[in-house]
Amino acid sequence: LEVAQDRIAEKSFFNDLQIATAPWRPVRNRTELDAAVSQIGRPSVLKTTRFGYDGKGQVKIEADTDLDQIWQEIGGSDAILEGWIDFDSEMSVIVARGLDGETVCFEPVENRHRHHILHTSVVPARAHPELARRAEEIAVRAARELDLVGLLAVELFVTADGTLLANEMAPRPHNSGHWTMDACAVDQFEQFVRAVCGLPLGQPDRHADAEMINLIGDEGNDWLRYLQEPQSHLHLYGKAEARPGRKMGHVTRLLPKT
Amino acid sequence: LEVAQDRIAEKSFFNDLQIATAPWRPVRNRTELDAAVSQIGRPSVLKTTRFGYDGKGQVKIEADTDLDQIWQEIGGSDAILEGWIDFDSEMSVIVARGLDGETVCFEPVENRHRHHILHTSVVPARAHPELARRAEEIAVRAARELDLVGLLAVELFVTADGTLLANEMAPRPHNSGHWTMDACAVDQFEQFVRAVCGLPLGQPDRHADAEMINLIGDEGNDWLRYLQEPQSHLHLYGKAEARPGRKMGHVTRLLPKT
Repeated sequence: LEVAQDRIAEKSFFNDLQIATAPWRPVRNRTELDAAVSQIGRPSVLKTTRFGYDGKGQVKIEADTDLDQIWQEIGGSDAILEGWIDFDSEMSVIVARGLDGETVCFEPVENRHRHHILHTSVVPARAHPELARRAEEIAVRAARELDLVGLLAVELFVTADGTLLANEMAPRPHNSGHWTMDACAVDQFEQFVRAVCGLPLGQPDRHADAEMINLIGDEGNDWLRYLQEPQSHLHLYGKAEARPGRKMGHVTRLLPKT
Repeated sequence: LEVAQDRIAEKSFFNDLQIATAPWRPVRNRTELDAAVSQIGRPSVLKTTRFGYDGKGQVKIEADTDLDQIWQEIGGSDAILEGWIDFDSEMSVIVARGLDGETVCFEPVENRHRHHILHTSVVPARAHPELARRAEEIAVRAARELDLVGLLAVELFVTADGTLLANEMAPRPHNSGHWTMDACAVDQFEQFVRAVCGLPLGQPDRHADAEMINLIGDEGNDWLRYLQEPQSHLHLYGKAEARPGRKMGHVTRLLPKT
């Protein structure tokens, strides 16, 4: 699953499967950066190909951005330039695939980020159910092509005209699936264990609508307020120190099923 | 909370609160056994006052039971004779009481035993809702009188004429409350922690009807079958050896809320 650890391999993988992504170009040196920016245009985003998460290792290229400076910022390492997507919403879907190839998707969620960090996941997603169905199809196709056993989380952009663009994927339980712990008979962690152990996969039905809120940095100090909400499940990770951007826990708010 | 560890103290406690129990007599020696049996009648049950659980330390006195023999069986230690209750059903209720005296009850469940060991807890209980309400009242009164902070589980018999008879109590999370792990936003274990830490008590609402089934002895080997049920939550305790009567795990089956 090296493919999920390298953004260029990941984009190629999606495109080879006829799964649309933002336009992109590999950027291996300063000269390729010029070429890529002239092809993709501005705004666009320059990202390191590896080890990027929570907005680390990426910079936006605006109309007036100095490319020399940006190239230094990103560290001059292998990078990828991606077209800027002015998306309507972001969605993610988690598919489980068992040893026998059976696949089961948890319902796609809508994700909201703050400062490039996942802040909230909401289920059901606001997008049209047909888009959610297509997102599931994409995840299933990707998991099959990878011959993955376990979980695959796929993040997608939903554009204003209803196009789905695959952004990235992660072959593991995912922050945007934490709501399953409180709203499903079998959560993503148990589903993962079932998949890799060759056990029957659980049904993904949820008994409630849900909103998962990450407690980031100092927000971890707000836990008492969530304990006072009748249908909130609090999860604190027991981290000693609340640094900015650090995920200290999360809350799942359950809401009547719509 | 010594009172919950001694069956005589426990019965006296209930009766002092005007909470009905089966008729009972203390039996401290062989002579008192004769007197007690002539007062309570047969059938009745002789129980050790301490360390009894899952049917251990109790024997039934039938019409033809030899009292000398029974007295030897029970070990000649402090005992209690209780009238035999031909109950319609058994119910238990778990109340949480916080540092500030606030009380919250989980909905009473109906319990079914096999060989004196809890086998199944079902919620809602079959008994009339008014009986469930009275069971909650009994638990709340007991918890207040004990000035308990934490959880109190009270087991009751429901007789054919709708009388509630308190049987025993336990000042802790209880097997008959395991269903809350899968059907409530805040389960009995979190509720216990909230109570003793002075945190707000959680709401006890359940999102489903539930049936908790203990996996006893060899039944622990049936776990795979429960994994195949869509709305079942499997909990295995990781015990190495399946001895007869040993609780190896439990399953909560969720059912549409009635």
